[in-house]
Amino acid sequence: MISQKVLKRFLQYRICLIKFQRLGFEKAFSYNLGKEAGVTAEQVRKDFSYFGIKGSKRGGYDIKYLLSAIDGIFKRNGERKIIVIGMGNIGQALANYQGFKENKIDIVAGFDLDPAKYSRKFAIPVYPLDNMEKIIKKNKIKTAVIAVPEFAGQEVCNKLVSAGIKGILNFSPVVLQVPDDIMVNYVNLRNELESLFYYTQVNK
Amino acid sequence: MISQKVLKRFLQYRICLIKFQRLGFEKAFSYNLGKEAGVTAEQVRKDFSYFGIKGSKRGGYDIKYLLSAIDGIFKRNGERKIIVIGMGNIGQALANYQGFKENKIDIVAGFDLDPAKYSRKFAIPVYPLDNMEKIIKKNKIKTAVIAVPEFAGQEVCNKLVSAGIKGILNFSPVVLQVPDDIMVNYVNLRNELESLFYYTQVNK
Repeated sequence: MISQKVLKRFLQYRICLIKFQRLGFEKAFSYNLGKEAGVTAEQVRKDFSYFGIKGSKRGGYDIKYLLSAIDGIFKRNGERKIIVIGMGNIGQALANYQGFKENKIDIVAGFDLDPAKYSRKFAIPVYPLDNMEKIIKKNKIKTAVIAVPEFAGQEVCNKLVSAGIKGILNFSPVVLQVPDDIMVNYVNLRNELESLFYYTQVNK
Repeated sequence: MISQKVLKRFLQYRICLIKFQRLGFEKAFSYNLGKEAGVTAEQVRKDFSYFGIKGSKRGGYDIKYLLSAIDGIFKRNGERKIIVIGMGNIGQALANYQGFKENKIDIVAGFDLDPAKYSRKFAIPVYPLDNMEKIIKKNKIKTAVIAVPEFAGQEVCNKLVSAGIKGILNFSPVVLQVPDDIMVNYVNLRNELESLFYYTQVNK
């Protein structure tokens, strides 16, 4: 089991490597990658050697090889289906987001309490919350996004967990109480901004 | 200067305390807060004592007092204006997000390359990127959100920094190169999902 921190660095390396490739490079050195990803060259080498990925001091790392090695870590069997609960502003933005399609992340369905949303034309089909369990099981979905208001966050989470969801990306501004085998990643936009406000005030 | 980690814990405490208040509580203990915020009771007490905030072992912390103390840390002078660069799915979701208005975060303007966006009815006025510097300086804005495609992220960042922006919330999937006095917070939705996919695959 790799830690979240290491995983996120690898995802960052991946983004940097694709950028290098677009710029026409075939090889990259640990200091190129470190600078671009915001870590030290030592950290890059350490991370790669953990997975048995080796470069040469003179030649650096082969970018194509690195990319396929990283993809090997993340795309274990190609199943990358998700559902989104809550089709408000955030839910709709996710449903329309091209960056997911490009990376073969498939948003199978959205769910919402509001019947008006079922007939509206979104990029994905939208269903009542009562259909959630059936669709999760039918499509063998393991990952869900919670984008509902704060008051509904924990209740939706409980339903997802009992339907078999193992990974949750939570946009609702609440800390979710989950069993030990469930992973929750948090995106709290207000808190991200608040910490910037604090910083910009202190450093005037 | 408080670290980002500590800041984010305080923002989390704030959310929990508001929840307790809504449930009718007037006092909270460090273990209540710790459980809800996902940290130990010891951590809660340590964080509060760093700011000279004290509770009693028998009576706990006064929730109203805690909230005003936390607000005192974050709302140094009430200026909480931001701009959003890129009025795609994410930019539009932010412009419409009610959670910002409730917390007195004012999105002054949006900016986009696409002229079709200037006349469309968004919740905020949308201008060409050329107007950015003028509006930043006129409104003394210090904090900006980058929600442009990857290829434009660094260029937009450079323009923001030279116009006087000090804090950036970056949704574009690229590590920004900035001077030392600029703070960047990252939200990379794809990476958040990728790390969940990895986890749900490994723990099948």
